Amino acid sequence: MQHAVQFTARSSADGVVERGFTVGEVPGVLWSPAAGSDRAPLVLMGHGGTHKKWPGMTGRAHRLVTGCGFHVAVIDAPGHGGRPRTAHDEQEIAALYRARAAGEAEGPIVVRSNAHLAARAVPEWRATLDALQELPEIGTDGPVGYFGLNMATAIGVPLTAVEPRITAAVFGLHWPDALADRAKRITVPVEYVLQWDDEHIPRESGLALFDAFASREKTLHANAGRHKELPRFEADSAVRFFARHLGRAVSPA
Amino acid sequence: MQHAVQFTARSSADGVVERGFTVGEVPGVLWSPAAGSDRAPLVLMGHGGTHKKWPGMTGRAHRLVTGCGFHVAVIDAPGHGGRPRTAHDEQEIAALYRARAAGEAEGPIVVRSNAHLAARAVPEWRATLDALQELPEIGTDGPVGYFGLNMATAIGVPLTAVEPRITAAVFGLHWPDALADRAKRITVPVEYVLQWDDEHIPRESGLALFDAFASREKTLHANAGRHKELPRFEADSAVRFFARHLGRAVSPA
Repeated sequence: MQHAVQFTARSSADGVVERGFTVGEVPGVLWSPAAGSDRAPLVLMGHGGTHKKWPGMTGRAHRLVTGCGFHVAVIDAPGHGGRPRTAHDEQEIAALYRARAAGEAEGPIVVRSNAHLAARAVPEWRATLDALQELPEIGTDGPVGYFGLNMATAIGVPLTAVEPRITAAVFGLHWPDALADRAKRITVPVEYVLQWDDEHIPRESGLALFDAFASREKTLHANAGRHKELPRFEADSAVRFFARHLGRAVSPA
Repeated sequence: MQHAVQFTARSSADGVVERGFTVGEVPGVLWSPAAGSDRAPLVLMGHGGTHKKWPGMTGRAHRLVTGCGFHVAVIDAPGHGGRPRTAHDEQEIAALYRARAAGEAEGPIVVRSNAHLAARAVPEWRATLDALQELPEIGTDGPVGYFGLNMATAIGVPLTAVEPRITAAVFGLHWPDALADRAKRITVPVEYVLQWDDEHIPRESGLALFDAFASREKTLHANAGRHKELPRFEADSAVRFFARHLGRAVSPA
């Protein structure tokens, strides 16, 4: 059964309209330009281990809306934000905390847990995209991008591999396990970020995932620093990447 | 003996003043903003196996001048452009052509030949910088950047390693041999570009040179494609890098 977008709240600031919505059980936020209701490209944005209105999400959304006039949509991943956790989710979170406390590698648990989340999140994203494209200001004929790091790369890579409406994607900060095979099916332009001194993801693992994308146009941005030290200018770079590939100019900040 | 800048020609177009100059025997070009004679940062730009007025140099210079208000200076490397070749230069060029004709690896010859050129070019660059800083519109207290790929990385890495006036640098497209030890002495912010499918420089070699820089702030940009397929947007990225580190905003193109 296809669900329609149900708007739940609306606010506006700095030229950006923010609307809460649900598609079935899945809550999301849609950011749009305040001026003009012309059709504009849509960027789907995934969050890491946080939720749809984490400040990093809001900040990136504002740059994409005010810089390029795009619509930007984010939804809560299963078990995140306002969404209930399953017993399996709770077990995985407990396993992660145990590994951290014991000083053991988080990678194997994160990879396994994210793969499980992605299997639930991919159909949710596709249903959300179906519903968003019913809105007159988005429509079915405009280009669509995907922007997500960490857990949102674990969801975005399999999503982009099966979703032909996504024509450009920014990924990063993940292991290749469970993703490299999907990446090999992706041919749209990709920008991939990794941290050169990531204490969780071995350098070779990040390079291997970048290498796996079949895209003729792909760019790796590797910055010195640890896992959480991704420089802020990479968000601006993502804006320019989407401007190039979804067909808009970037206005100065 | 210190030489002064001798200007040899002047033209102006699109808001950019272009002045030919010599410092001693070394010919160069200085591009400057047409409007305003306020002091502005200086970017030293090296050419690859071409010369000071190769279109790629002119194009990058115009972006730096019109985008950020910088001065940009380029000089002909020894044996390039209008400069005489030594018997050693001629031997190395012949060796390179023989290797190409025989389908042999160019790397060992290029590395050896560039190291020899760099030993001659580094003192020329330092003398040129001394002379340029005597100009009232540049001065001795402003920040200085270096931008050079290929052969200009072979020259720029040893130059930046010994020249404390250079406070940010863009390098790329070179082997680590003869350079990694110098790179280990560089601590200023670095942006490094490489081509993921470079048919001359093995991927691991490019990554090893990036890894060698001691800079706390360093960014690798690796793009899919062969040696000569560096995307044009990397020139814009270099402009933004210098704007961040030499202290100017970027105006839209």
